[in-house]
Amino acid sequence: MKHVTTIKELRAVLEELPHPIGFVPTMGFLHEGHMSLVRRAGVECASVVASIYANPTQFAPDEDFATYPRDIPRDKVMLEAEGVDAVWIPTTEVMYPAGYQSWVTVEDVTQPLEGARRPTHFRGVTTIVSKLFNAVRPDKAFFGQKDAQQAVVIRRMTQDLSYPIEIVVCPIMRESDGLAMSSRNTYLNTEQHQAALSLSQGLMQAQAAFENGEGDATSLRQIVINRVNAENLTSLQYVSCAHPDTLEELEGDVDRCLISLAVFVGKTRLIDNVLLG
Amino acid sequence: MKHVTTIKELRAVLEELPHPIGFVPTMGFLHEGHMSLVRRAGVECASVVASIYANPTQFAPDEDFATYPRDIPRDKVMLEAEGVDAVWIPTTEVMYPAGYQSWVTVEDVTQPLEGARRPTHFRGVTTIVSKLFNAVRPDKAFFGQKDAQQAVVIRRMTQDLSYPIEIVVCPIMRESDGLAMSSRNTYLNTEQHQAALSLSQGLMQAQAAFENGEGDATSLRQIVINRVNAENLTSLQYVSCAHPDTLEELEGDVDRCLISLAVFVGKTRLIDNVLLG
Repeated sequence: MKHVTTIKELRAVLEELPHPIGFVPTMGFLHEGHMSLVRRAGVECASVVASIYANPTQFAPDEDFATYPRDIPRDKVMLEAEGVDAVWIPTTEVMYPAGYQSWVTVEDVTQPLEGARRPTHFRGVTTIVSKLFNAVRPDKAFFGQKDAQQAVVIRRMTQDLSYPIEIVVCPIMRESDGLAMSSRNTYLNTEQHQAALSLSQGLMQAQAAFENGEGDATSLRQIVINRVNAENLTSLQYVSCAHPDTLEELEGDVDRCLISLAVFVGKTRLIDNVLLG
Repeated sequence: MKHVTTIKELRAVLEELPHPIGFVPTMGFLHEGHMSLVRRAGVECASVVASIYANPTQFAPDEDFATYPRDIPRDKVMLEAEGVDAVWIPTTEVMYPAGYQSWVTVEDVTQPLEGARRPTHFRGVTTIVSKLFNAVRPDKAFFGQKDAQQAVVIRRMTQDLSYPIEIVVCPIMRESDGLAMSSRNTYLNTEQHQAALSLSQGLMQAQAAFENGEGDATSLRQIVINRVNAENLTSLQYVSCAHPDTLEELEGDVDRCLISLAVFVGKTRLIDNVLLG
């Protein structure tokens, strides 16, 4: 596996790789969620390129950029074991050079849900993903359904900005107890981890109700709210039942929806979601 | 020469072209300025791709999008005669599909000069150029110095957004009487054309003064102002003496500068510039 830092080094390595090239962008501290993307890329593409970069512009000043978990040596071992051809680990000097002043923004689909609570987050995400796409020029790029709104935003950006890149969104990977895998799970102590199971359990209860004929958006949201609020250590930020493509909040009977939520467990902010219908 | 409309058609043609690929984006109604870019691309690159698209998002509602001159059959003959390999002529359905909501913006260098008088112009320019870059994935792209601020903005965007594309800025092409070539020159009648010569003549007078030791920014601007205002049919919008990279307006003695101006001649808005030092 080649390890590159600068865009010039990256381009030299890419010139030798056969197409189609599959690209897996990550912020590092890899877990089985990331590895499922890498494996899917390996199945679908002749070459696999990953990136590791904790992007400062998608964290607000009061968020956890400084403490976001990092372990690049371990990440490299994991990527190499899966046969990744090249890993790009840029520095912030490479990504945000002196005088930096350019941004990629997506309007409507970044407004609700995560965007409403993290107003500068998606500008950081769309800018860094554009930059990664521009430098890597992949044929396919792989993202996790865990960040459901991000997947919608990246699909919209890719179409709008004429990228000839197929966006592949892979299913959420969960611990055996149901907790959605996240690099931030490392922040949780044992009690908090137990309380955090209410996210996936609330979603599964809503899914079961939907499959048994409950189609009312308010009722579906309430099932999730009740389960999360049954825990002492949780602080619910939002539960949404939204259109899976536009992310507009739904009312009344629904055929298809994205149920998503954000919950603080202690200082740790967790998200999870399920697609219904 | 291949003529393509959709991104899928474009990508199929591009896969057969040898690298390096040189790209010349245009709004059509081609003149010798455009052709100088095409020829330079032909000298420097193994393949040349041009695009023709009058981009609506870089025109304000009160500007000349509806009347902007168009002659695609003539443009195609001119490009083919120079050995261009492929021309991409997208429709607005291809460029701005239903639900379009993504933008590329560059902050500081879009604020003065043209940006101050045309506040939505550069967002349109940077967005469409990004889209063209994303779809074509060229090795080099060719722009004219005629749009001096645009060249600065595109260089900044290309560096900031990690495009592995070399930006080549080619000299202004002029009529034999000095008028900078522009598709908009077609709007001018004979008297207006004569009055429009005051732009290039004012700039040449400032250049001569600079070469004879006049280094004061205010004095250099005044030389241009005086020449333009000596005409009855001209209405000066601005004359600037700015830093060539940051575009910050300069005062006092200058070593290097971009002198640029915008002038209405009748309803036609003309720009021109010269780099000194």
